[in-house]
Amino acid sequence: MNIKDIGEQGLLRILQKFCPAEIVGDDCAVMVTNPNKSLAVTTDMLVDQVHFSDRTTRPYDAGWRAAAANLSDLAAMGATPLAVTVALAVAADTALLWVEEFYRGMTACLQEYHTPIVGGDIVRSPVVTVAITAFGEVECDRTIRRSNARSGWAIVATGVHGSSRAGLELLLNPEFGQNLTEVDRTALILAHQRPKPRLDVLPIVWEILGSESETLIAGMDSSDGLADAIMQICRASGVGAKVDRQKIPIPNIFREILSTEKALDWALYGGEDFELVLFLPMVNAELLVEKIGNKSAIVGTATDSTDIWLTDSSGIYSDAKLTLDRGFQHFR
Amino acid sequence: MNIKDIGEQGLLRILQKFCPAEIVGDDCAVMVTNPNKSLAVTTDMLVDQVHFSDRTTRPYDAGWRAAAANLSDLAAMGATPLAVTVALAVAADTALLWVEEFYRGMTACLQEYHTPIVGGDIVRSPVVTVAITAFGEVECDRTIRRSNARSGWAIVATGVHGSSRAGLELLLNPEFGQNLTEVDRTALILAHQRPKPRLDVLPIVWEILGSESETLIAGMDSSDGLADAIMQICRASGVGAKVDRQKIPIPNIFREILSTEKALDWALYGGEDFELVLFLPMVNAELLVEKIGNKSAIVGTATDSTDIWLTDSSGIYSDAKLTLDRGFQHFR
Repeated sequence: MNIKDIGEQGLLRILQKFCPAEIVGDDCAVMVTNPNKSLAVTTDMLVDQVHFSDRTTRPYDAGWRAAAANLSDLAAMGATPLAVTVALAVAADTALLWVEEFYRGMTACLQEYHTPIVGGDIVRSPVVTVAITAFGEVECDRTIRRSNARSGWAIVATGVHGSSRAGLELLLNPEFGQNLTEVDRTALILAHQRPKPRLDVLPIVWEILGSESETLIAGMDSSDGLADAIMQICRASGVGAKVDRQKIPIPNIFREILSTEKALDWALYGGEDFELVLFLPMVNAELLVEKIGNKSAIVGTATDSTDIWLTDSSGIYSDAKLTLDRGFQHFR
Repeated sequence: MNIKDIGEQGLLRILQKFCPAEIVGDDCAVMVTNPNKSLAVTTDMLVDQVHFSDRTTRPYDAGWRAAAANLSDLAAMGATPLAVTVALAVAADTALLWVEEFYRGMTACLQEYHTPIVGGDIVRSPVVTVAITAFGEVECDRTIRRSNARSGWAIVATGVHGSSRAGLELLLNPEFGQNLTEVDRTALILAHQRPKPRLDVLPIVWEILGSESETLIAGMDSSDGLADAIMQICRASGVGAKVDRQKIPIPNIFREILSTEKALDWALYGGEDFELVLFLPMVNAELLVEKIGNKSAIVGTATDSTDIWLTDSSGIYSDAKLTLDRGFQHFR
């Protein structure tokens, strides 16, 4: 059954089931907010064949990832989610099942973080397109900004990097990783298909900093890669960094299936791991990685210079400047 | 010059000039909100050739209209705008000038209502697509909802209806209205190209209701037509209505260039006039139309029944049931 078989009103009725009943049916959604908090807002647009494709991403997973990416942006600011709006463009011949599965995946992820879909728009377009806007709340004196980093602070990655890239490779290129166990295979593919926004890290950060602390920490998420996150924060804060290649947390299995260079490349530039990259005082950072556990790590320190060096505490590799050359450029 | 000539980063730099400098460069925009107000949120998606076309809409006007539609949704809830986010999908061969003009039009409209663009996304797509999300604030006990209408209340249209439809006709069909003066022609075309969200009506409404009032009035905007607005409010409130065809405010010039039937048709079903349609106690309504002036009018009253009748106080036409048959159905 395609969208044209049920029409806009039919589709609307189906999609409204994914939203809280009390919120639907006015020109806007209206929400009560916390009087002591600021509003954090982020928006993402996803286009069929550009940001997802039936070849690598089932609609359920595309929906999950879209939600996760937006919640991750909130986490990166220190904000807890309030709600999202979803605008959807579909073609007359788009399968209804695709749309329903997309919404199922999206709401499955959102529900893990108690986040309702409070509004939306449905339009027609030759190209399936989704725009998600997420709103969250953050205490004014806790907003995590890219520009807050200071020289001497530790750089924390909240988890492994490169898994999502490896999962994508498994989906694109079945020859890759034929020697992997089913468990490892599934773990990497799930890292790509069902990334988890690290909203769970925030309460730990606030606990460590303490309610008296006036320290404003720096950070962003690693959706565009670990290297990109470090460089963006350094640039915004006017600091440099030394990143120890031996400290970058990668999946254990990488040591068996990838060359050292490839593993490092995927960890730094693979992207879409949706971990947080935080710059904070060393004493807080050490406590933080201890409490988060699970492969979170201090990967380096911020420096006075504006250069970003990839160092090697094992002494095997000579220092190299980290660049964005491997980054993804659209419109080429 | 096309988008591919400047790349994503180049486009980003150009579009950031349309946003407040202090807000750009983090994963989210963060805004301080008023502690005593609720958050109102609305989102719209616009697709090239579906919602705008170079044939009838210059990019400046498409941008203006996109902003106006979202601000109008806020006005319809009784909310004052805080900010918008804009997600934009463009093709590699989209003209940079198109994008710049779209943003110029959008910000020109937003600036009239002191509303900044605080965030966005830029992606590539074969089809130019824009998703706007607008946030506003509304006092909890003043939210205008479709479901608040009561039998006996007056139905107010805050201005003329049908102008936007006539403006569109002038653009699509140059033969139409050849006898119009340049002033009338321009006025109708501007009604279509540069509609004004009726945020100016809200302070008048609050003044008339008074700060002590516990009356929650009903309303929505007439973006999908006056008939649609009246029917949506009646359905949501479980009331009916009698609408007097003689009272529906239409442009004076309609009487010279259109048959009575056509004028009524465009006023009821033309859409995109972006006026407010408000249901409120008669005594308040009379004061309201007096204060708004400028062709605002009480067009009818809400009734106990659930039927919506088009009546004629001049006695020429017999009563007819108002239906949505003339409404616009997508996906056909």
